[in-house]
Amino acid sequence: MFGWGWKRRLEARKPDVRVVVIGAGFGGLAAIRGLRKAPARISVIDRKNHHLFQPLLYQVATAGLNPSDIARPIRRIVRGRKWAEVLLADVTGIDTERRVVTLADGEVPYDYLIVAAGATHSYFGNPEWEEFAPGLKSIEDALEIRRRMLLAFEIAERETDEATRREWLTFAVVGGGPTGVELAGTLRDVARMTLAKDFTHIDPSTARVVLIEGGPRVLGGFEPEASESARKQLERLGVEVRTGERVTRIDADGVMVGDERIAARTVLWAAGVAASPLGRTLGAPTDRAGRVMVHPDLTVPGHPEIHVVGDLAHLEQDGAPIPGVAPAATQMGAHAARNIVRAMEGEPPLPFRYVDKGSMAAIGRGAAVAQLGRLKLSGVLAWLAWLFVHILFLIGFRNRMLVMFQWAWSYFSYDRGARLITSRAEGPLVTGLTDARLPSTREAESIHDQAART
Amino acid sequence: MFGWGWKRRLEARKPDVRVVVIGAGFGGLAAIRGLRKAPARISVIDRKNHHLFQPLLYQVATAGLNPSDIARPIRRIVRGRKWAEVLLADVTGIDTERRVVTLADGEVPYDYLIVAAGATHSYFGNPEWEEFAPGLKSIEDALEIRRRMLLAFEIAERETDEATRREWLTFAVVGGGPTGVELAGTLRDVARMTLAKDFTHIDPSTARVVLIEGGPRVLGGFEPEASESARKQLERLGVEVRTGERVTRIDADGVMVGDERIAARTVLWAAGVAASPLGRTLGAPTDRAGRVMVHPDLTVPGHPEIHVVGDLAHLEQDGAPIPGVAPAATQMGAHAARNIVRAMEGEPPLPFRYVDKGSMAAIGRGAAVAQLGRLKLSGVLAWLAWLFVHILFLIGFRNRMLVMFQWAWSYFSYDRGARLITSRAEGPLVTGLTDARLPSTREAESIHDQAART
Repeated sequence: MFGWGWKRRLEARKPDVRVVVIGAGFGGLAAIRGLRKAPARISVIDRKNHHLFQPLLYQVATAGLNPSDIARPIRRIVRGRKWAEVLLADVTGIDTERRVVTLADGEVPYDYLIVAAGATHSYFGNPEWEEFAPGLKSIEDALEIRRRMLLAFEIAERETDEATRREWLTFAVVGGGPTGVELAGTLRDVARMTLAKDFTHIDPSTARVVLIEGGPRVLGGFEPEASESARKQLERLGVEVRTGERVTRIDADGVMVGDERIAARTVLWAAGVAASPLGRTLGAPTDRAGRVMVHPDLTVPGHPEIHVVGDLAHLEQDGAPIPGVAPAATQMGAHAARNIVRAMEGEPPLPFRYVDKGSMAAIGRGAAVAQLGRLKLSGVLAWLAWLFVHILFLIGFRNRMLVMFQWAWSYFSYDRGARLITSRAEGPLVTGLTDARLPSTREAESIHDQAART
Repeated sequence: MFGWGWKRRLEARKPDVRVVVIGAGFGGLAAIRGLRKAPARISVIDRKNHHLFQPLLYQVATAGLNPSDIARPIRRIVRGRKWAEVLLADVTGIDTERRVVTLADGEVPYDYLIVAAGATHSYFGNPEWEEFAPGLKSIEDALEIRRRMLLAFEIAERETDEATRREWLTFAVVGGGPTGVELAGTLRDVARMTLAKDFTHIDPSTARVVLIEGGPRVLGGFEPEASESARKQLERLGVEVRTGERVTRIDADGVMVGDERIAARTVLWAAGVAASPLGRTLGAPTDRAGRVMVHPDLTVPGHPEIHVVGDLAHLEQDGAPIPGVAPAATQMGAHAARNIVRAMEGEPPLPFRYVDKGSMAAIGRGAAVAQLGRLKLSGVLAWLAWLFVHILFLIGFRNRMLVMFQWAWSYFSYDRGARLITSRAEGPLVTGLTDARLPSTREAESIHDQAART
């Protein structure tokens, strides 16, 4: 009976307190890390099996990196942790009275809850735009954008009508925040460098990229000088930057900017985000974007056991809301974990204070802006700083090495590693060319016919 | 007018002969390479934008490699070739009278044609099995298999009914050729090493993998000793090998083998292939699998200008058909190119002769069989030979380096780099768990409930 008794003694040490973390983004991950030594059982719930390093998602969308370079299985991250479990599930709501998280197929009780469910795209009340202008939040989004981008060049190559061909070689990016700037700049890089020599009938470097921002300047969250530098660097790459202009319509053939039509067969959405609908199920007040108005200690009014962190939380600091960026989410997640540990030890919670360590945005090859405290960089220096920071923070040694290798390769060879068009639908016979947005049927324009005409 | 005259002189050198290559697999690629110096205009038509290194596709299916590690854009391979163009298009037929290849949206004329359209899965007259048992031919197939495999473990983790849980932890692989052997062996490797420590409620290493082969032995194309060695190595990895047993039914819950039911929620198809339907549009005799019966010089009866190579060609040598393997396709493609060059120079065609340089099949970590002439290897030595050959033949220096790095990493860390569950459908909200093959709704089994019961 020795073995059994030994096991029972171990079981007896199993902690009673149950902490549930919803979402394994930057906020959720930091919370899990912060609870490492807490005497609690931890459940991590996410609808994906992987944590995603979102700041580099645009690299997947532009064929520079592979999905697995910027994503890690959550199980792999939590591995080896005692009393921690990972649930791949859809959270449908939170019952704050019974203290349970309800799933599509069950429920999970909690003593402390950290909601880090993040945000998704918002089309400002025009959900029908999504079909024509995919946003960039998940790996699936990134692969869809990659597919559309590469396919546009393939279709242009086979298109004989010059006007239609120009439409396929025109790309509109809606939204001039970091994601929009990165997409637009990298698109031009891809066109003028990676694809430049690969086509027979088109010159990819003539591709037109239009970046449309409703506000007065790109990178509105940055200081005005950074915005100005970003605009100049974008224009140097050949991006057409249009600020102070509102998109009024998006369809299969392009966008309307005010009264002007931009005929672009590929439109990408980098404008609005809305908080996860989960925020509204907490019964707490939310702001216009659906973010939960939290107390300074990140808890929900009336529920000191519920913490909301990351893009889903609205908290003002020094008169402005804390921005929805990865460092803020990370700091919030860590703070919520710290307060939970304090509560378990009978200590009062501490208020959260966001420490802004700076912002940076990549623009293209050797082009970026960065503001790190009083240090302001642009161009190659900012780009090197950006590279350094992003490789440093990529989770997992293996990913870091692979990404470094691929970037070095791309830099020197002008090539991009993940130039694959894979189908949206399953099955080996479905190709992009059987897509709804096909060029009209016509006689094939092959090199032979062209030759005959010359 | 100097510039114009100069340009016209250049144009005048544009070759008149038009060669069309259908398919950029091993056969097509070798043909394109063989036509490098031929005074001809070359059109490569493929429905994918990438050449796929198929022998490593099972590594993508088992989360070991990324799609882009084993795929290269066709344009990148052909880049810099004068008078060569790449068309991303679906070939719908071949008009041998008018000498044009018809596409879904046009046509391309030819003087010489090389048909290298390959093969696809065949479900032996049971197309309804495809839904339940995906095959492995394209990147999309591989990602679907990866999704199902990883999801099965996730669902098992959350399943409380022990019998159902066992069903989710049972994997059936139908077909004991190289692909089936590789899939089955690697599945056990993933279960007992990669995932072993990542789950709370299940022990992935107890996953049951059943390999079902209708013939008397696995690796039927190899010598009997290799088959015997492969069986032993598979069994050492924990694979249940069943030979001489026919699958009579496949559905969402498993397979019927004769009268016996194997309850497996994941079934993979590695059994039959059928030649591309394009073969039948040539008007030439075909064998039972739809392969075109070609002349010894690989041309079609009555059409010395049409060459068929690779998996689509049926040619006997020393009393047996040349096998549908990558080296045979490569040799055929090169041979067809050589004969076309000869024809352009007025020389008669040469008959094709397949040189069998040996075969190898990987089984798992440190497990493989190889027969290279009189040299027969198995176990670690065969596995090292397999590694060496496959890295050597991977197209492109960059891919080779990346693959080597990832394999070295996997070997020493027991980790696999591409453990991502990405949706089949687009959109950020669709997860695997909203799939049709869901476990029944139930109370969530979280670590807490389990704890309460102990």
